[in-house]
Amino acid sequence: MLSTMQDVPLTVTRILSHGMTIHGKSQVTTWTGESEPQRRSFAEIGARAAQLAHALRDELGVTGDQRVATLMWNNAEHVEAYFAIPSMGAVLHTLNLRLAPEQLVWVVAHADDQVVIVNGSLLPLLAPLLPHLPSLRHVVVTGPGDRSVLDGAAPRVHEYEELLAGRPTAYDWPDLDERQAAAMCYTSGTTGDPKGVVYSHRSIYLHSMQVNMTESMGLTDKDTSLVVVPQFHVNAWGLPHATFMTGVNMLMPDRFLQPAPLAEMIESERPTHAAAVPTIWQGLLAEVTAHPRDLSSMARVTIGGAACPPSLMEAYDKLGVRLCHAWGMTETSPLGTMANPPAGLTAEEEWPYRVTQGRFPAGVEARLVGPGGEHLPWDGESAGELEVRGSWIAGAYYGGADGEDLRPEDKFSEDGWLKTGDVGVISDEGFLTLTDRAKDVIKSGGEWISSVELENAIMAHPDVAEAAVVAVPDDKWGERPLATVVLKEGATADYAALKAFLARSVAKWQLPERWTIIPAVPKTSVGKFDKKVIRRQYADGELDVTRL
Amino acid sequence: MLSTMQDVPLTVTRILSHGMTIHGKSQVTTWTGESEPQRRSFAEIGARAAQLAHALRDELGVTGDQRVATLMWNNAEHVEAYFAIPSMGAVLHTLNLRLAPEQLVWVVAHADDQVVIVNGSLLPLLAPLLPHLPSLRHVVVTGPGDRSVLDGAAPRVHEYEELLAGRPTAYDWPDLDERQAAAMCYTSGTTGDPKGVVYSHRSIYLHSMQVNMTESMGLTDKDTSLVVVPQFHVNAWGLPHATFMTGVNMLMPDRFLQPAPLAEMIESERPTHAAAVPTIWQGLLAEVTAHPRDLSSMARVTIGGAACPPSLMEAYDKLGVRLCHAWGMTETSPLGTMANPPAGLTAEEEWPYRVTQGRFPAGVEARLVGPGGEHLPWDGESAGELEVRGSWIAGAYYGGADGEDLRPEDKFSEDGWLKTGDVGVISDEGFLTLTDRAKDVIKSGGEWISSVELENAIMAHPDVAEAAVVAVPDDKWGERPLATVVLKEGATADYAALKAFLARSVAKWQLPERWTIIPAVPKTSVGKFDKKVIRRQYADGELDVTRL
Repeated sequence: MLSTMQDVPLTVTRILSHGMTIHGKSQVTTWTGESEPQRRSFAEIGARAAQLAHALRDELGVTGDQRVATLMWNNAEHVEAYFAIPSMGAVLHTLNLRLAPEQLVWVVAHADDQVVIVNGSLLPLLAPLLPHLPSLRHVVVTGPGDRSVLDGAAPRVHEYEELLAGRPTAYDWPDLDERQAAAMCYTSGTTGDPKGVVYSHRSIYLHSMQVNMTESMGLTDKDTSLVVVPQFHVNAWGLPHATFMTGVNMLMPDRFLQPAPLAEMIESERPTHAAAVPTIWQGLLAEVTAHPRDLSSMARVTIGGAACPPSLMEAYDKLGVRLCHAWGMTETSPLGTMANPPAGLTAEEEWPYRVTQGRFPAGVEARLVGPGGEHLPWDGESAGELEVRGSWIAGAYYGGADGEDLRPEDKFSEDGWLKTGDVGVISDEGFLTLTDRAKDVIKSGGEWISSVELENAIMAHPDVAEAAVVAVPDDKWGERPLATVVLKEGATADYAALKAFLARSVAKWQLPERWTIIPAVPKTSVGKFDKKVIRRQYADGELDVTRL
Repeated sequence: MLSTMQDVPLTVTRILSHGMTIHGKSQVTTWTGESEPQRRSFAEIGARAAQLAHALRDELGVTGDQRVATLMWNNAEHVEAYFAIPSMGAVLHTLNLRLAPEQLVWVVAHADDQVVIVNGSLLPLLAPLLPHLPSLRHVVVTGPGDRSVLDGAAPRVHEYEELLAGRPTAYDWPDLDERQAAAMCYTSGTTGDPKGVVYSHRSIYLHSMQVNMTESMGLTDKDTSLVVVPQFHVNAWGLPHATFMTGVNMLMPDRFLQPAPLAEMIESERPTHAAAVPTIWQGLLAEVTAHPRDLSSMARVTIGGAACPPSLMEAYDKLGVRLCHAWGMTETSPLGTMANPPAGLTAEEEWPYRVTQGRFPAGVEARLVGPGGEHLPWDGESAGELEVRGSWIAGAYYGGADGEDLRPEDKFSEDGWLKTGDVGVISDEGFLTLTDRAKDVIKSGGEWISSVELENAIMAHPDVAEAAVVAVPDDKWGERPLATVVLKEGATADYAALKAFLARSVAKWQLPERWTIIPAVPKTSVGKFDKKVIRRQYADGELDVTRL
């Protein structure tokens, strides 16, 4: 028996037309580094999105579901692209300007991008790559920046404002299937080629509703959200769409992501909400400690992308700014969990909930899978790999114009769930605590040993500066932990003392038999422990390992 | 190009499994009229819903998408039925216990209900009808009430608790299409047969997200919602589903809907939110004026079903309780608008927004259609019939087991929008103000005259007790207004004086030519002006009409 409800698709077009009418007065404010920021109403954004769509179709010949790329900071023009491109039936491809040049070349070719809209300030990054980007028929430039670097570039170059000028401010948007592609984003994995995640109109619409639910970010037209998280990073955590759905004002930093301008824009524009990764908040804290600024308007901050040090949350609590942990990834749109504590708790009682990754909304189903593939209980103790399912969760990667979608076994289960690659526990109240990346866990005789727990326990020793624990092959157990330790200057602890110290806080079967003292832990370009290097050094016999 | 997102259906089953796990500790509290209310956790509700589904399938033989009716107050057992029936693939049919007996017989037959779950206290209503309800194979009774009235009833009678006892507390819920029927509700129109609205899993899921969005009711597990609006009335405005989605505690009044017990349960259980029609809040206000009670926990109240007198909103403001207007109907699930004012206003500036019907969420598209079928601007002045479109809006009525869906021309536009039958204006900020029912508007020479505006203007005259204005046929203009006036005792105003008074506030072309003084305005059973009767009296020549 079918319902008698109307069959109305959930589309980005609908979010646009709602935002530009019902919330037509809400604003996108873009920082310019000059005395006055640029201010543009949702109604203006909507009219300009229509002009952009006309230009893309009539002038640049974009048809069907062709891909249009952006290489842009967070600003009003990027928001216009966010709505024009999917609403006309094309697919928005946000290019991550932090990708290595060869990766940028690879993803533009793989997505078969026809057009790129680029901020003038990013032309020095794009121009040298253009000869290697044959799919790009047009380059559209917006905002300040020296255009001369494009001289002699093969594709036709256009000025964004000239392209829009004089075109109709309304567009007869096509009817779209809600499962059609709206936007895509490539993950920058450390191994292999980048993987394309393709969001649908449906997934973006549902995710936007969730962002605005009171249990998540809970935003309305009474809010102004400072969107620091880049628009090329998982659609700026869905904020440009979510804000148009309920009329939330956006404050966009453009290229001014340094602590001083961020502090200045917060004090002068008084956003009520913000979203960014921990490093941004660490930099801002140092800035306002040195040069005090009033951040108190920003009552709520969504923090994700990496675990937030509790000390950072405490420091911001004192400034009247509450950091709220969220967990997600490119494959999860990204809202997977948010760490809003349950009701009726004191600040002290809330703390253990705030330092978790948070709780799943109804749209995200979760399960923990153990070393043997078994599903583990939510008891706060059983650690397994987190797998998730839901309407805004990827079930595959884009296979390219002529290829089939990719479903690598290490990323998707047989029944279609996403394997997150994160290992953790879930409490009986549904709060997730992540402990390791799956690839960093030591699989020892059918049990998992957390490398992070061992590292923290070793680093608690007063003589230890740093410690990294990695899995190494073991004939009997499959894998066993190898402890690599950096001692503080002048420290004298020996292996036996370290192991005895560790035995005080860790179960005996988890204690490493292999130890080595090294001068420094190898790091990645963003400062994380580079365990790949340690594993390779061990395999190549480069480490002086003591067994005990 | 399709997206790479997972294809996960939006189902009531998912809301249930989320609520009973992540929010397993949230509670449904049902008032019993005794010293202690009944308290049941979401986890228990979920376990009992599984038991109910087993009983319905294994014991009562409910299969496929058969209809299971409820004739119940708001209570925990009714919530169990809300989740068990749709999740097993069957269809929940909530019977409106205020329907006339012949209408109840009609809707049970039309829906082909197989089973009815009934509160013991409602058996005196059901028992005499049973001989006329041949589709009902089983009657399941729950809660207090004399069972002897069922003696000799043809269908098999079961005790709810006995039926559940000992059955498995988990159920292997089937995979369902999100467009499948989940629940149905008949509208009790004043003319013709009741019309069946069939909600889908998808419509209920999306509506639940909207209810929990901060711009709407904005509920979380920190809230307790007092659900006074009956579960047989548009799914209690979607609250049982919305609360399970985010863990909102529910306070259920069962049959204790009188002002005194409502005041008592608010003072002792301290709900933070409530939902009911204006008459409930009027009765409660009189009660707490006579017998003071602390209602201050209930900071937010959703009020709908009829326009709320501004005086009532002011009176509750003084008690620290904010009434927020919502508009909707059975055909709109029901959330159509909510009157949350825009940001940055003083209490005084908020007032003109609070007395509107409110603003549309992104999920509800709206348009105003004028007398000639033209679409009218949102200028706060152009009055037209409101038509709406969206995923939780009906596009047809149920045609019965063997019939096709019904799409009467006066209820659905050719392009599938719902004609609400309400006439009003929309401001440029998207706030809706309703003025008339479409059938009460006077269509005069291609323009519309608001009967409500004329009535209010006439009733402002000091000699007038009541006035009702109806459309009557007119050879030249199509329709013209007829003013029927009830004078106060001893008043002396004549027709000319009344017309002159009216001319001060109304455009000349809107002034009625036909006037009659009557002893009283005919009223419906719920106290509304019964304009059908006046139109018939006029047509039959029963009124003494003066033309001037």
